[in-house]
Amino acid sequence: MFLGRVIGSVWATQKEEGMDNLKLMVIQPIDFRNADAGQHVIAADRIGAGVGEKVIVSRGSPARILFGGRMVPIDAMIVGIVDSFDVMPEKPDEEETAWKSSRSSG
Amino acid sequence: MFLGRVIGSVWATQKEEGMDNLKLMVIQPIDFRNADAGQHVIAADRIGAGVGEKVIVSRGSPARILFGGRMVPIDAMIVGIVDSFDVMPEKPDEEETAWKSSRSSG
Amino acid sequence: MFLGRVIGSVWATQKEEGMDNLKLMVIQPIDFRNADAGQHVIAADRIGAGVGEKVIVSRGSPARILFGGRMVPIDAMIVGIVDSFDVMPEKPDEEETAWKSSRSSG
Amino acid sequence: MFLGRVIGSVWATQKEEGMDNLKLMVIQPIDFRNADAGQHVIAADRIGAGVGEKVIVSRGSPARILFGGRMVPIDAMIVGIVDSFDVMPEKPDEEETAWKSSRSSG
Amino acid sequence: MFLGRVIGSVWATQKEEGMDNLKLMVIQPIDFRNADAGQHVIAADRIGAGVGEKVIVSRGSPARILFGGRMVPIDAMIVGIVDSFDVMPEKPDEEETAWKSSRSSG
Repeated sequence: MFLGRVIGSVWATQKEEGMDNLKLMVIQPIDFRNADAGQHVIAADRIGAGVGEKVIVSRGSPARILFGGRMVPIDAMIVGIVDSFDVMPEKPDEEETAWKSSRSSG
Repeated sequence: MFLGRVIGSVWATQKEEGMDNLKLMVIQPIDFRNADAGQHVIAADRIGAGVGEKVIVSRGSPARILFGGRMVPIDAMIVGIVDSFDVMPEKPDEEETAWKSSRSSG
Repeated sequence: MFLGRVIGSVWATQKEEGMDNLKLMVIQPIDFRNADAGQHVIAADRIGAGVGEKVIVSRGSPARILFGGRMVPIDAMIVGIVDSFDVMPEKPDEEETAWKSSRSSG
Repeated sequence: MFLGRVIGSVWATQKEEGMDNLKLMVIQPIDFRNADAGQHVIAADRIGAGVGEKVIVSRGSPARILFGGRMVPIDAMIVGIVDSFDVMPEKPDEEETAWKSSRSSG
Repeated sequence: MFLGRVIGSVWATQKEEGMDNLKLMVIQPIDFRNADAGQHVIAADRIGAGVGEKVIVSRGSPARILFGGRMVPIDAMIVGIVDSFDVMPEKPDEEETAWKSSRSSG
């Protein structure tokens, strides 16, 4: 999945089978520093994500399985609204020059 | 899904099984500022999208499920013609420096 | 799908199940201006595409469905040889600065 | 699959069906020189990967098959915690200018 | 599929179901000029590819079908070891400025 910020909505009346009654949101992918990270994605939303909220987006066929046997030709879905995250961006103190690495098992 | 502008059509007589009677459109992916956003994509169209129109394109196996059990080896499909959109590109007023974020629940 | 130019062939004798009797072509993805557009792709071919020809390539699991229940572990397939195309690259005359857009229905 | 470093966790209470009881980790893709290699990915974890550990991440529908028939709409999964690796980055001594290559069979 | 050079192996003892007894190789994607072409990929190998060999790698769910109904959550597989290839990189002599193209049928 990727992190995104909801930046809007898009509407279409002329559409394919299975696209009825789907709320389509516009997502700006971002990283955990809040910087933009790639092109806009259009994702279906069933959990009520609002503009400005940070969301978790799933892509590809996993995004579609929620609709079971119905023919819903979507390839991106909002699967969670982010409450909080805890991210440590710094590289751990380790042998960074090594091309061979061994994890101290434990 | 991604936003695209229809920029043309492409024809092939020598083709694989399941590619008959498919209208193939050439799509320029764009962002919601109308700027180009990536390489050309060839997508099947069954809803009558015209050159110059903005469309929503779905990729991968979701694009194919509309054909059910038939062997249609496409990986991109126009699933909607855009009527309108409402996008707010600016970042919301928030703690952008933070690596820890908490969404004010509501 | 994407547009590509066939630039060669590749052979392997030591290979996985299901890869027998497959012609594997090397594809240079291109855009509709004939400029290179990404890294080389190896695609299976059953329709007789020749070196120098422009082809339509489908990727991912859709590329495999042509083999039905057989275990053919390919992820790219030539699905058409391009006869002709008609592409209008220029942006239409429109409100390009707008972040809100409304398609004149018709 | 790709190599990544676990850099944190993310939480969501409002979420889609099938997302309950999933631990979601934030992954920084890296190469085998330990350099960052792409945007952050959110992956499900069932094997107890900790922050700072190097992991193997699988993407797309393969990531979901572990859940069998359950509707779990994820597209990335941690499938292994790296113990060690042995990588030889240098190009082998060979005819690098050639566009035709023949592997000495045997 | 893409062309790659095997540059090493990676090991994990703590891993997901279905990852047992899989040899995991580290692949450097390359183009047919032998230049690096993208980030490292970790691919399963059942055909005995050695370090330094050029291989054909398949990605996504096609890579997994070789395992049939078993739950093997991989997304990349070595499907062939390259014996030889014959690639013509130059663009054919043609009307490269044209946006309309017609293939002389035959």
